[in-house]
Amino acid sequence: MNETHDPELRSWVESANDPHSDFPIQNLPFGVFEPGVIGVAIGDQILNLRECARRGLLPASVREAVSAPLLNPLMGLPAGELTGLRRRLMELVRQGADREQVESALVAQGDVAMMVPVAIGDYTDFYASIHHAINVGRLFRPDNPLLPNYRWVPIAYHGRASSIVVSGTRVHRPSGQRKEPHANAPEFGPSKALDYEMEAGFFIGRGNALGEPIGVGEAGEHLFGMCIVNDWSARDIQAWEYQPLGPFLGKNFATTISPWVVTMEALEPYRAGRAGRGADDPEPLPYLDSENDRRRGALDVRLSASLWSREMRGQGTAAMELSSATIADLYWTPAQMIAHHTSNGCNLRTGDLIASGTVSGPGARERGSLIEITGRGAEPIALPTGEKRGFLEDGDEVTIRAWCTREGFARIGFGECRGALIHA
Amino acid sequence: MNETHDPELRSWVESANDPHSDFPIQNLPFGVFEPGVIGVAIGDQILNLRECARRGLLPASVREAVSAPLLNPLMGLPAGELTGLRRRLMELVRQGADREQVESALVAQGDVAMMVPVAIGDYTDFYASIHHAINVGRLFRPDNPLLPNYRWVPIAYHGRASSIVVSGTRVHRPSGQRKEPHANAPEFGPSKALDYEMEAGFFIGRGNALGEPIGVGEAGEHLFGMCIVNDWSARDIQAWEYQPLGPFLGKNFATTISPWVVTMEALEPYRAGRAGRGADDPEPLPYLDSENDRRRGALDVRLSASLWSREMRGQGTAAMELSSATIADLYWTPAQMIAHHTSNGCNLRTGDLIASGTVSGPGARERGSLIEITGRGAEPIALPTGEKRGFLEDGDEVTIRAWCTREGFARIGFGECRGALIHA
Repeated sequence: MNETHDPELRSWVESANDPHSDFPIQNLPFGVFEPGVIGVAIGDQILNLRECARRGLLPASVREAVSAPLLNPLMGLPAGELTGLRRRLMELVRQGADREQVESALVAQGDVAMMVPVAIGDYTDFYASIHHAINVGRLFRPDNPLLPNYRWVPIAYHGRASSIVVSGTRVHRPSGQRKEPHANAPEFGPSKALDYEMEAGFFIGRGNALGEPIGVGEAGEHLFGMCIVNDWSARDIQAWEYQPLGPFLGKNFATTISPWVVTMEALEPYRAGRAGRGADDPEPLPYLDSENDRRRGALDVRLSASLWSREMRGQGTAAMELSSATIADLYWTPAQMIAHHTSNGCNLRTGDLIASGTVSGPGARERGSLIEITGRGAEPIALPTGEKRGFLEDGDEVTIRAWCTREGFARIGFGECRGALIHA
Repeated sequence: MNETHDPELRSWVESANDPHSDFPIQNLPFGVFEPGVIGVAIGDQILNLRECARRGLLPASVREAVSAPLLNPLMGLPAGELTGLRRRLMELVRQGADREQVESALVAQGDVAMMVPVAIGDYTDFYASIHHAINVGRLFRPDNPLLPNYRWVPIAYHGRASSIVVSGTRVHRPSGQRKEPHANAPEFGPSKALDYEMEAGFFIGRGNALGEPIGVGEAGEHLFGMCIVNDWSARDIQAWEYQPLGPFLGKNFATTISPWVVTMEALEPYRAGRAGRGADDPEPLPYLDSENDRRRGALDVRLSASLWSREMRGQGTAAMELSSATIADLYWTPAQMIAHHTSNGCNLRTGDLIASGTVSGPGARERGSLIEITGRGAEPIALPTGEKRGFLEDGDEVTIRAWCTREGFARIGFGECRGALIHA
């Protein structure tokens, strides 16, 4: 075991030792708080890295990167520098360390506003959950839910970078064209079928040059870390616009991400002893086949999405879980996504965001969007207040959380990815 | 007539007075030459704006913007500042002006390398030519070439910003998955169906805030200028991957743009006395219907694409024109594209690129891609050397040019958008 994963490690920041904290000393995710300061989450605090660097507490080689207003320079550092930074940060906050010089570089998470932490050049959204593809495909093609390319091609599309917002940002219900099946013409108005999609997002660390693919065996070295993504979707707009070039206005009105980026180094121990592919699935083509991936098993991060309506909040009712699934059940791994994305020579840049697509699992409670849960609105769910939901209503708040557990290791979490809908 | 469009205006830069020059004094497009200097094309020269500003020849209010390493700050200036800058630039280079103080701020176009002139946050590609949609649709659905949404929705998808390259950059033939119709499994290898797409690109000047749509009547105020785009496409990769989320690796290996951005102000006079929609087409929905657009008529910019094979170059044979069409035949105008794009609240940022999609016209010589010209490779064309082309071969160079003419006005052009294919 890498010593930075030692479950016995404890911090002098007491809140980090709470077994329910998302941010124990084994995690140390990066984020940016207003007006553009890089910090690391520890318990309910944030360690201000710019301040630590100013005080000479961090290696001189990372000083410029940790003092930048966004994470990109840090994400592009060589792996050795990042490992060194992780170890140094642990030294600063571990129990027994000299807290005198560090304590005043802490700010309480409740006292600052977090920002989208990265300048995201391009945002790509995959479709890596075969369970999601089948659940959605069944609604449109009951006899033939999975398209013939699915088991071969890691399907993806380009999303919109400009409308990525940080957790807590309110989301306007989009207006758009939609057409009733038997209507002669479409109409324009607020979407009547607004959905969430529970996803994982992976940030690119080191990029590649145009024309130089990344082999699947080295793809992991280009990953910096993971966040939570809610890919809000207007199903009625999407259904009418998506032929033949795919989703556009049905998706690009807003995408919410969590503010904390958990590094691949922190995630390394949390792997399932299995992969998302089944015995009947074809072998991946050689450019997607990694002995390394197979041996280590899939990353196992559990996501959970919950709904909290305005009425539930008014009555003091707790939010209700709608979806829970693990990325270990994805058909394609992040390494396969990167190898595929660059197989034609496409260049990835430091800070690019690669999302998984909706994460659904095989179970009935493991469907990662309302369209799957309610059969496109046909079978609405009941909330504890007696309200019904086929799709989301104005005032609804959706929160996605994520965490990793493994016997013999600390639990680490991602914080939350939260958004409330407001009228069009 | 706005005086900056006066066809009698002449420059002391003699090459700008050549009637065949793309860059007469009435044009004045912006570009960036290495290592990051903004210039304006005039004849076969470039006026170095940073140097002009340093010498106090430009208004102080634009000094910072014209001294930046990319066009974004300039593109975000208020309309009045841009108009003032255009007038001032004309004063500097017009016949009779004091050339002493300006002449040494000129550099020959042949002496510098041009760059992608803009930091492009997001790149959107529309599908605005109904002729292209029908030509391509006929290959896949002979009885029903046009999908039911086409006449209502300005169809678009998000392209890849990272792989946009400037004219002259060589393009690697992409590898990817493709599947023969009767094969059991796909194979991975270099694309066998590489195509060009002749397009117009529009750069956003002033952006909009997330959640605040731009009305079609004001959309023109958000356009800064136009360039030429070649949206290289691997038809075999695209055909196998595009269901259900649209094109991805079939497109994102490279997109070539011309280095010069012709401002909307320079383009203003060149309008066709007609629009691309026919009498049988439905009225646009109100959010896409602009009295202003209708009254002024569609912008009329003619594009022409030519092919020059390695063998043609070796024999000293001139390039052969493959496509020629005008954007006046597009079904959707740039104003409609912007209104649609933001109708759901999606935010556009200064420097975003909005391309038209392949520009094809109604005529047989007006098909803007090889898939249309050769019926997906089934009817190859003959080159002057006797070579045949269903799709592009390694060594082929495709050049797209564009220009505007109108009785009583100077001819203005866009320079060229050129790229040669190299092996995978």
